Amino acid sequence: MAKKGDIEMVVVMDTKASEDDIGRVVSEVEAVGGQAFVSPGKLRTVIGLVGDTARFMELPLATLPHVEQVIRVGKPYKLVARELHQDATIVNVAGVPIGEGYFTMIAGPCAIETEEQAIEAARMAQDMGAHILRGDAYKHRTSPYAFQGLGKRGLEILRLMSQETGMPTVTEVLEPADVELVAEYTDVLRVGTRNAQNFPLLRECGRSGKAVMLKRGMAGTIEEWLMAAEYVAREGTSDIILCERGIRTYEPAYRNTLDIAAVPAAKQLTHLPVIVDPSHSGGRKELVAPLARAAVAAGADAVMIDIHPDPRAALCDGPQALTRDDIAELGAELLAIADAVGKKPADHVARG
Amino acid sequence: MAKKGDIEMVVVMDTKASEDDIGRVVSEVEAVGGQAFVSPGKLRTVIGLVGDTARFMELPLATLPHVEQVIRVGKPYKLVARELHQDATIVNVAGVPIGEGYFTMIAGPCAIETEEQAIEAARMAQDMGAHILRGDAYKHRTSPYAFQGLGKRGLEILRLMSQETGMPTVTEVLEPADVELVAEYTDVLRVGTRNAQNFPLLRECGRSGKAVMLKRGMAGTIEEWLMAAEYVAREGTSDIILCERGIRTYEPAYRNTLDIAAVPAAKQLTHLPVIVDPSHSGGRKELVAPLARAAVAAGADAVMIDIHPDPRAALCDGPQALTRDDIAELGAELLAIADAVGKKPADHVARG
Amino acid sequence: MAKKGDIEMVVVMDTKASEDDIGRVVSEVEAVGGQAFVSPGKLRTVIGLVGDTARFMELPLATLPHVEQVIRVGKPYKLVARELHQDATIVNVAGVPIGEGYFTMIAGPCAIETEEQAIEAARMAQDMGAHILRGDAYKHRTSPYAFQGLGKRGLEILRLMSQETGMPTVTEVLEPADVELVAEYTDVLRVGTRNAQNFPLLRECGRSGKAVMLKRGMAGTIEEWLMAAEYVAREGTSDIILCERGIRTYEPAYRNTLDIAAVPAAKQLTHLPVIVDPSHSGGRKELVAPLARAAVAAGADAVMIDIHPDPRAALCDGPQALTRDDIAELGAELLAIADAVGKKPADHVARG
Amino acid sequence: MAKKGDIEMVVVMDTKASEDDIGRVVSEVEAVGGQAFVSPGKLRTVIGLVGDTARFMELPLATLPHVEQVIRVGKPYKLVARELHQDATIVNVAGVPIGEGYFTMIAGPCAIETEEQAIEAARMAQDMGAHILRGDAYKHRTSPYAFQGLGKRGLEILRLMSQETGMPTVTEVLEPADVELVAEYTDVLRVGTRNAQNFPLLRECGRSGKAVMLKRGMAGTIEEWLMAAEYVAREGTSDIILCERGIRTYEPAYRNTLDIAAVPAAKQLTHLPVIVDPSHSGGRKELVAPLARAAVAAGADAVMIDIHPDPRAALCDGPQALTRDDIAELGAELLAIADAVGKKPADHVARG
Repeated sequence: MAKKGDIEMVVVMDTKASEDDIGRVVSEVEAVGGQAFVSPGKLRTVIGLVGDTARFMELPLATLPHVEQVIRVGKPYKLVARELHQDATIVNVAGVPIGEGYFTMIAGPCAIETEEQAIEAARMAQDMGAHILRGDAYKHRTSPYAFQGLGKRGLEILRLMSQETGMPTVTEVLEPADVELVAEYTDVLRVGTRNAQNFPLLRECGRSGKAVMLKRGMAGTIEEWLMAAEYVAREGTSDIILCERGIRTYEPAYRNTLDIAAVPAAKQLTHLPVIVDPSHSGGRKELVAPLARAAVAAGADAVMIDIHPDPRAALCDGPQALTRDDIAELGAELLAIADAVGKKPADHVARG
Repeated sequence: MAKKGDIEMVVVMDTKASEDDIGRVVSEVEAVGGQAFVSPGKLRTVIGLVGDTARFMELPLATLPHVEQVIRVGKPYKLVARELHQDATIVNVAGVPIGEGYFTMIAGPCAIETEEQAIEAARMAQDMGAHILRGDAYKHRTSPYAFQGLGKRGLEILRLMSQETGMPTVTEVLEPADVELVAEYTDVLRVGTRNAQNFPLLRECGRSGKAVMLKRGMAGTIEEWLMAAEYVAREGTSDIILCERGIRTYEPAYRNTLDIAAVPAAKQLTHLPVIVDPSHSGGRKELVAPLARAAVAAGADAVMIDIHPDPRAALCDGPQALTRDDIAELGAELLAIADAVGKKPADHVARG
Repeated sequence: MAKKGDIEMVVVMDTKASEDDIGRVVSEVEAVGGQAFVSPGKLRTVIGLVGDTARFMELPLATLPHVEQVIRVGKPYKLVARELHQDATIVNVAGVPIGEGYFTMIAGPCAIETEEQAIEAARMAQDMGAHILRGDAYKHRTSPYAFQGLGKRGLEILRLMSQETGMPTVTEVLEPADVELVAEYTDVLRVGTRNAQNFPLLRECGRSGKAVMLKRGMAGTIEEWLMAAEYVAREGTSDIILCERGIRTYEPAYRNTLDIAAVPAAKQLTHLPVIVDPSHSGGRKELVAPLARAAVAAGADAVMIDIHPDPRAALCDGPQALTRDDIAELGAELLAIADAVGKKPADHVARG
Repeated sequence: MAKKGDIEMVVVMDTKASEDDIGRVVSEVEAVGGQAFVSPGKLRTVIGLVGDTARFMELPLATLPHVEQVIRVGKPYKLVARELHQDATIVNVAGVPIGEGYFTMIAGPCAIETEEQAIEAARMAQDMGAHILRGDAYKHRTSPYAFQGLGKRGLEILRLMSQETGMPTVTEVLEPADVELVAEYTDVLRVGTRNAQNFPLLRECGRSGKAVMLKRGMAGTIEEWLMAAEYVAREGTSDIILCERGIRTYEPAYRNTLDIAAVPAAKQLTHLPVIVDPSHSGGRKELVAPLARAAVAAGADAVMIDIHPDPRAALCDGPQALTRDDIAELGAELLAIADAVGKKPADHVARG
């Protein structure tokens, strides 16, 4: 069999399509340099499209007369697709690897509230065995009446946390205009779930020269998540980390439903690292440890955990923050599970 | 172009599939009398399957080595498909038509509680201009501690409601063993949302000689709903009425989310009538009238409304039942909307 | 009974809570100026909170020992709440009213592609009886490889559309930095579904001096939608229009599932107008008319419809655009339904 | 503080409620022997209800004039609630424990197809280290054209599987009429996801004298799942096993979305064991091992895995069945993870 181009889409005509209707599809496809392979049937005709998916996606195929269905076979993303880049990407965060073969622990306060709280949380993270610190200076809050973060002062404290512990950091950036400033203070820019399809922000992050962590949208599909990564990758970087953080479902028992299957499923589709935020997934403290354990067992390359010296005083998401007592044994448990699934702690390399 | 059989499925091989892997798919397909049309590409090979969908669905195609995706193009249902039966089915319920071109009103109590309540509700339905009565003797309750219905005594009251008003009736049946008894007392057997995939019950209803109303599953797809109808139709009847009643979503503001688009979408796919239950959709009384109006405007062939002489005394779903005051103008409003969308009241024929 | 402040929250302690645990909740509440009313029980103690919800929401109540549940009774939004402002807000869009008692038609192209296409679509909208034009110069596209809009040139064409027809316009704005420019060219700024919780953008729109149309988030709750409106309202405007455009569910038959019940439900909770976009709800042309009819019947204050002189040439969302043939009768049908539900066409006032 | 009865519900009146409206709620509550504690506010009045939840749930409180919200504080289930029975239930399946502290492996073919296939699968399960066998004789299939199981002959083969390996078994029962027969042949009756609210079936299983395994409904909440267990428990048994098997979400990448948080969340609410079916959760073979590992790490008391000597020949759910190669190391991995989370293999006791 002679190899030809790949079928990227399949167009199904309905039972009433005439040869003219079929011809119209063919000529649209050919007009953008594609090829259309027609398979007529008794009830319906099926047309295979070979050529450039991106150009086909621009065609109004579904509006042509008697087109019943347009099925995409190829992937709409390229740069981040495993199909085209078999080797896993290991993102190097100031010496700490995140990616296949490693298990990385990220921990810190949800929001940076005061220097004292932040430094204390950073020390807790270090004691727990974490490799990277988290801590936000800009907060995305559903209510306009809630604490919105310390802003630039928060970034300065973040830098102190890093200096105090020698650990790299990740922090959220909320709008394109802030990217440059935030990038000065951190190793990884994080784009939150509510900005998962904020394309101007994604583009700006891609141009920052920093690694970018992409939270999955609150009700985002895996494909949309990878398309967001494609937006970043197009700006020239492959230092992208995908972070599953729970999706919206009908279940009222928790804030979000951790989609644990997204970890192995996304890893099949992309060469980028996939990590889990067990804290924001459930929104309840007692779920954090079980979800973190599940994440590591499912193959997550890292987990990112909210901790707080005194959650009762937290200005943001206190309900899910772990205390010193909570994490006393969690770090060791996660390492034991990582070992059981063949992953070595990130520090082996970080310190290498 | 010579017409051949229809492509019913498309199998997409992954980038690592060998000619042997492709050959294995082809031979599986040919072994059940199908034909496989292979389109090799640079990245992936796509195979079109011509033959009997039902037999293909039995094949473990997705487990064969290097099969990435199996896409169904044909419909898994046949008897209820519009594709194969262009003419709309008008179900005749003891002289009252339900189907294309007509607008039918169904009303009555959610549960039959006492003879007095039921007869009074039947008179309310008649005054409102309803064509068919509803009223349940067997109730499906989430809590074992809730009222479960009057059983056979309820069926006797249902018959009295019909005799009193001269109207046909619809009532729920909960288990296969009850079908025969319930069928003696009513014109339409209703299968509830929690039984939407109770296949033994569906089969038994299909054999009853009565029309069957199928509520959509609480989280059922349109395709699953039509497959349930196919189960009933296979027993030899096409007197099947599809009833949209709201689906489960993440929105906490109402019990269920009425999927209004299911009305036009299902009508495209099937020749069976499609109706709406606005009462159970929202679960809140103040939503019933707006949702009933929306249903008629969207093209529903009937609406089914819970009414109660005194909802405050209702033993079941009182919160959504309309009272005499509520329905005073609703019947006329619904008729005006039906007129605006080109549907005539069912009674024009019923009394013809 | 002496009236006291309102109970804004209810805290449920678990079965193991001690008097100390209860006391801690009380002191947290009192520390922010609230009052706590304790109702001890055999299994669990329940505490009612009177005071300022916003301050209570900042408290980490759920993290206190032996707190089982924190239930909010009050609304987290104030300025947009019907509870506090019974009179409906009628937004005046350059003389065209949107709000209770009126039915307003908005139509135009999804994207402005060329001057010719846009002007022709504007004339189609006028012929259909529309009161306001839509047309986007900036497009939010899931794929980085898709058409992203004409930008400033598109805004100039939008102005021409308005001049040509004498109709006001609505157009999307994608990022805070663009608000000032876009506001120069249009009467209503629209915030899209992917930006439904882009708070910097919401704030900037609220300061623009223009009316703001807020699409509901792709998987946004009604409460989150109202909180987004609260963000805008806090900047000093009540010219806010809520637009339902379909939510994400498990049903694969359409792009989104129109949540028709959101129209009456949101109108109960807020004094702001609520409208429907039937085009983006279903994403399929044949669903637009039924969904538009349903929207009007359910009480939507306006519908916004994508039209295109030649959808087959559309660079964006062609599949759902209506043509001249499609809309020939739709305008009149929608007016007939509006009449049946007691709404008068917006032009009665616009021309008054 | 004098302890009184527990507040089981909270009724919130709207801003327009009069003292009469409030009085009506109070008298309804008192009429069923309850007590109503009224907290009047400036905007709204809140009423706490003390007494029997089950009776309150029968009251049409939400339909009373000016009632805005009815919030349940107490649990609607009793027998299965952890609140009232702190000690975990360990279900004894013919000597094999399922419950807190243990990790139990259940494996076998999805459907019993032939004696040869079933016996071979049973041996595979044994080699893998499984403690209990699965294998179905009655299949619940969405399509009426699909393989429906071997029926009684399948049960006979199931018994052979048990005799051959000395292991107890679990198998599905589809309708009340089959319960007695199926119970003769197996140790655990399983109720499938489509029957999760088939209450006549649940009751019959509860009366069978066998342990009952309850799959969570396809879109069932944790509360509905526990209510189903309550239906079974009311018949006099506490040998009930809850099985999470994925829920329906908007994500198209897998058949169902495994709700891993349901494991720790359900275990907080009930004393019954909670297990996971990783095979039906994802519906794709390559997800089974990662999901099984995640389940054990999250604290599941057992996992139930589909295996097949030759999935390519499977008549049912072949795509998700593991082969001899797939499971070679999985059993040992799962035990290592169980060990890391403090659970010992069920066999320690079974053979003790």
